[in-house]
Amino acid sequence: MPDTSSEPHMNHKIVLAARPQGRVRDEHFREEHAPIPSASDGEILVRTSMFSLDPYMRGRMNDGPSYAAPVAIGEVMTARGIGTVIESKCADFAAGDTVFGHTGWQSHCVMRPPAAYAPTAAAAMAPRALDSAYAPPSTALGILGMPGLTAYVGLQVIGAPAAGETVVVSAASGAVGAVVGQLARMRGCRVVGVAGAASKCDYVVEELGFDACVSHHSATLAEELRAACPDGIDIYFENVGGKTFEAVLPQLNTFARIPVCGSIANYNSSSAPSEVNYMAALQRAMTSKRLHMQGFIVSDRWDLFEEYHAQMSAWIRAGRAHYKEDIVDGLANAPRAFQGLLAGENFGKLLIRVS
Amino acid sequence: MPDTSSEPHMNHKIVLAARPQGRVRDEHFREEHAPIPSASDGEILVRTSMFSLDPYMRGRMNDGPSYAAPVAIGEVMTARGIGTVIESKCADFAAGDTVFGHTGWQSHCVMRPPAAYAPTAAAAMAPRALDSAYAPPSTALGILGMPGLTAYVGLQVIGAPAAGETVVVSAASGAVGAVVGQLARMRGCRVVGVAGAASKCDYVVEELGFDACVSHHSATLAEELRAACPDGIDIYFENVGGKTFEAVLPQLNTFARIPVCGSIANYNSSSAPSEVNYMAALQRAMTSKRLHMQGFIVSDRWDLFEEYHAQMSAWIRAGRAHYKEDIVDGLANAPRAFQGLLAGENFGKLLIRVS
Repeated sequence: MPDTSSEPHMNHKIVLAARPQGRVRDEHFREEHAPIPSASDGEILVRTSMFSLDPYMRGRMNDGPSYAAPVAIGEVMTARGIGTVIESKCADFAAGDTVFGHTGWQSHCVMRPPAAYAPTAAAAMAPRALDSAYAPPSTALGILGMPGLTAYVGLQVIGAPAAGETVVVSAASGAVGAVVGQLARMRGCRVVGVAGAASKCDYVVEELGFDACVSHHSATLAEELRAACPDGIDIYFENVGGKTFEAVLPQLNTFARIPVCGSIANYNSSSAPSEVNYMAALQRAMTSKRLHMQGFIVSDRWDLFEEYHAQMSAWIRAGRAHYKEDIVDGLANAPRAFQGLLAGENFGKLLIRVS
Repeated sequence: MPDTSSEPHMNHKIVLAARPQGRVRDEHFREEHAPIPSASDGEILVRTSMFSLDPYMRGRMNDGPSYAAPVAIGEVMTARGIGTVIESKCADFAAGDTVFGHTGWQSHCVMRPPAAYAPTAAAAMAPRALDSAYAPPSTALGILGMPGLTAYVGLQVIGAPAAGETVVVSAASGAVGAVVGQLARMRGCRVVGVAGAASKCDYVVEELGFDACVSHHSATLAEELRAACPDGIDIYFENVGGKTFEAVLPQLNTFARIPVCGSIANYNSSSAPSEVNYMAALQRAMTSKRLHMQGFIVSDRWDLFEEYHAQMSAWIRAGRAHYKEDIVDGLANAPRAFQGLLAGENFGKLLIRVS
């Protein structure tokens, strides 16, 4: 096969080569090149400028029942992205428009805008034009997109924060956690982050305005969390699971709420036994503390998108809300960057810049 | 000390002698005898006829923070009971009245009726007169009392069953589980119990009208549960924790609800590690299936008592709801009966008949 990787008139893409058992590695992905597709009536051809890497993609690499269909072996890895319309056969879009949509991990894709936009799960991926005068287009992949709405749904709908309550947010410097903490601060809560590197903890306090941030690398995580939460924990926004959850559990207050957004600590691991039976501890605490633990998926509440988007974009323009992007150049670096995401190595919303 | 155990004019009582670490044993209790107390103004003196043994009492034997204060060493064990007023210095009660109230594990006690009855947690223990023409007085300790309301609160408020859904109830033949299943059947649900002995499973299906019941002693519990729940599980009413929860977890449907009433499997055990990391499995399932798991305590919703009581007592009189009592004679047998309760040896609402 001729080397076509530098061929500008090809579609460069990364497909799922094999399903990981446990940790994701390079060999689970494969780079491929194919002719650039063309748009049919009602469709647009888009050249990807950036796409988003998110933890949920780990689930799509698995087979078996889940809330969304897995990526098939040989299929392009799924992703939201932004790009430029290079050919339009759809009245609502013109060549040169900047658009959001389901690009996948590839340089070119064809999108079919829906006949009407409805506040449904399908809308989470539907192509739409972006106005860069309104907000930088890349925010559609982060604070003004799926991760931001995820924070809003979990915090508002399940967490239901009241002023004066203490909110703990894991993966605090991440795309979701950063928004959770800022929203909770605006609601008058004490907000304590949990992050990894010291630089992330500093960022969360100094740039995002959290009251405190502790590191999950610390051997004294539980003690530090206790010092940072003198009145206990009323809401724990769960992104990670594992050791952080175990440190939080005994510090939860009666009637505490636990929106469960994800448990990235478990995504890559097979189910190794824990040294302590935390399940028994959880079951006891559920009743004695009347805990409310609820998993959620943002696409169930896409109806809240317009409400969230209007509010948050106003806050961004007013300088009241902040975000950070971690941009990796080159489609070929996506597999390695995704492995880093699962290991907590990114710092801010992880994006792949394709062109 | 003279032996006064057969002295009729003494108060016979069982006090907490020591706090158990792990399993409860005889040595954690002590029988004592003391002069019968007398009622002051506004109080009644009650001779206990029966009192109730319930799993929550295991928690009261522990020290440390919980939703209720522990029983002190040397203090009478806590219990709801029924009895006869033998002396009244309260206008609302007369000698000879049958009353419900906080008797504790003892033959005699003084009760102080509140000035007014409010639908609060305190009302859960407040003395009230019972009309035996309305329902057998012992039902105030079971289906028409705290265990019945517990079933109602967990199933209605957290479970929110819809007709056609599948409800699984652990400890199905117990005081709470039996009511959960009957209420769920009345709501048009498919109801599957989990119990221990074959006689209990038979009772749950034949007398209470559950659709099926499987035994947690079975080596093929998960498979039997799957066969009994061909459409998966929409509500799991959690009374036990442990292996039953582990069998249920993979069979829960998307948006399943788990009212957590208790986890009796954990009450007596120290936190031995599990062979499988079910915590990780739970965390993954919480999100992918959007599970809603919520602990509750009946006394938080004592405001629902009148509503429940009116409905259930009408069902009992109409022969639509059924209950079973397991009556043990003799105060001195309460410690052993309580140990049996925690091991699942009782069959029906466990009551101690004192006189």
